[in-house]
Amino acid sequence: MNAIVSKEIRLASRPVGMPTADNFELAEVTMPDLADRQVLIRNDWLTVDPYMRGRMYDMKSYVPPFQIGEPLQGGAVGEVVESRNDAFPVGTFVNHMDGWREYAINDATMLQKIDPSLAPLQTFLGALGMPGLTAYGGLLTIGQPKEGETVFVSAASGAVGQLVCQIAKIKGCRVVGSAGGKEKCDWLTEVAGIDAAVDYKACATQGELQAAVAEACPKGIDIYFENVGGDHLTTALNLANPWARIPMCGTISTYNAMEKPEGISNLSMVIGKRIRMEGFISFDYIGMADDFTRDMAGWIKSGEVKLKEDVVEGVENTPQAFMNLFTGGNFGKMLVKV
Amino acid sequence: MNAIVSKEIRLASRPVGMPTADNFELAEVTMPDLADRQVLIRNDWLTVDPYMRGRMYDMKSYVPPFQIGEPLQGGAVGEVVESRNDAFPVGTFVNHMDGWREYAINDATMLQKIDPSLAPLQTFLGALGMPGLTAYGGLLTIGQPKEGETVFVSAASGAVGQLVCQIAKIKGCRVVGSAGGKEKCDWLTEVAGIDAAVDYKACATQGELQAAVAEACPKGIDIYFENVGGDHLTTALNLANPWARIPMCGTISTYNAMEKPEGISNLSMVIGKRIRMEGFISFDYIGMADDFTRDMAGWIKSGEVKLKEDVVEGVENTPQAFMNLFTGGNFGKMLVKV
Repeated sequence: MNAIVSKEIRLASRPVGMPTADNFELAEVTMPDLADRQVLIRNDWLTVDPYMRGRMYDMKSYVPPFQIGEPLQGGAVGEVVESRNDAFPVGTFVNHMDGWREYAINDATMLQKIDPSLAPLQTFLGALGMPGLTAYGGLLTIGQPKEGETVFVSAASGAVGQLVCQIAKIKGCRVVGSAGGKEKCDWLTEVAGIDAAVDYKACATQGELQAAVAEACPKGIDIYFENVGGDHLTTALNLANPWARIPMCGTISTYNAMEKPEGISNLSMVIGKRIRMEGFISFDYIGMADDFTRDMAGWIKSGEVKLKEDVVEGVENTPQAFMNLFTGGNFGKMLVKV
Repeated sequence: MNAIVSKEIRLASRPVGMPTADNFELAEVTMPDLADRQVLIRNDWLTVDPYMRGRMYDMKSYVPPFQIGEPLQGGAVGEVVESRNDAFPVGTFVNHMDGWREYAINDATMLQKIDPSLAPLQTFLGALGMPGLTAYGGLLTIGQPKEGETVFVSAASGAVGQLVCQIAKIKGCRVVGSAGGKEKCDWLTEVAGIDAAVDYKACATQGELQAAVAEACPKGIDIYFENVGGDHLTTALNLANPWARIPMCGTISTYNAMEKPEGISNLSMVIGKRIRMEGFISFDYIGMADDFTRDMAGWIKSGEVKLKEDVVEGVENTPQAFMNLFTGGNFGKMLVKV
């Protein structure tokens, strides 16, 4: 097994604004012999997620920045194909953070076993993984949905949004999602079963977006699940009901900003309406992982939660999959089949 | 008593941008005879507060808009001088909402008796009144100050800010306030006893403000008590520690905006830092009123809370007192002695 050559994607340069192909380089490495306690994993699926853009800036955040010349990191699922660790014998399926590559060596400190009988492998990078826990934890803990309330979700067909929408439906809410284009909107109402979808790409101004969302939310907004920022947040603040909650999950519209993005100028709405805006990341809800896995696996099995995945093939296409996230070029959870 | 003539201030026109003297008119009315259950109150003190600017817009909010040609409303304390209500005999001191006038007739539905032995009368419009409950409820409930944390307060010498600063000190926090000008900053550090004060008027840019606040908050900001908006909020988000809380009390920098104010463009900080921003108004903390009155009266008596008041005399000067709030022309709780 020692002559295994693995393709990997490295950070060639830090993106300025929207990432481009030049920011990435494909490399091949020969996998070294395993040390004691190590395992060799053949990755089957890789995930790309918007938060990774933040790690491409050279600045301190809740995760350290990626380093130029080093392989990128991110969620991956694969199978142990060589092992010097009795806890992870050959044939074990695992979830880990050494994505953007075909093979990974891991000393078993940040390795999570997965049960492939629960759901297809790639689901552990989406609905049963980090995006799923993000949706579940953020909506239930900060959003606190109550039956009959109206939940507005941006990036509603995305990895997190599609789950927020469907969990909110399960909780008895009226759910309105925004997405770019008719195809995504149709999927949301016809397959995911939400109450209304707004095509934000058909709205030329914030005012048009607000008019469309207002029409879809005749009783106002009780929870806005924030994935986007910008005009979507402005709109949600204007249409929010008193005591509305805004789980702040992401502001993808600002991640590639080269100049200071246009700011939010109606935050004073927060005061009179007693709105709560609260940021979170998936790690915060690790304590809910058992409930989450049980609920989500059950909902997928029962068909209450439908999954939309967007798959590219080959590790060499991981940068393109990543770039799609920022142009709305993906439709559903963006995945790479190695 | 029936020939009493009362001066009152009416809304002459809705301000566009900063309020001007033209927006107000002084009128005289002869007080009518009392109906059953009514009392006639001679106002001793009136209060002006920033939230009143919102009621000058013709739009729905948590309180209805002021009407043109009608006397303005606002907190006032006075003495019952004529009564047809046994619950409020002549000589009773009361707190009520018919301010901006010398005399008021009230049918005793929104009338609160006050105990003038607790503190000087005007204190019931400040530290023992709405601004006090705002400071106490917002800081303790949303802010949840813990010993050793750093609390940053904007408009720190104002009616609410001065109390937030001193309550946070009592709770064992490092307290940094921002105010306009050396005199206010000196009062904050030398009289109110906070740890550092930043003169925002000496900062030409947001970057300068941030540098000054960062220097005063070497361990970052755990609680930002928001009275101002704009560059202050941008600064606080940039300097906030993980899990920071931002009680959103006011954004006075935006209240007179004629164009869309420059927005907040770093809200993505909220996510990775898990910041909670939450709006509130004083009414929300009515349930804490007994604790509040006991604590605050005690702190004033013990000297742990020092009060700074800015007094103008004569009902005819109420508009000027109000306008001072938006130029920083006041220093301390703005009051009118009738």
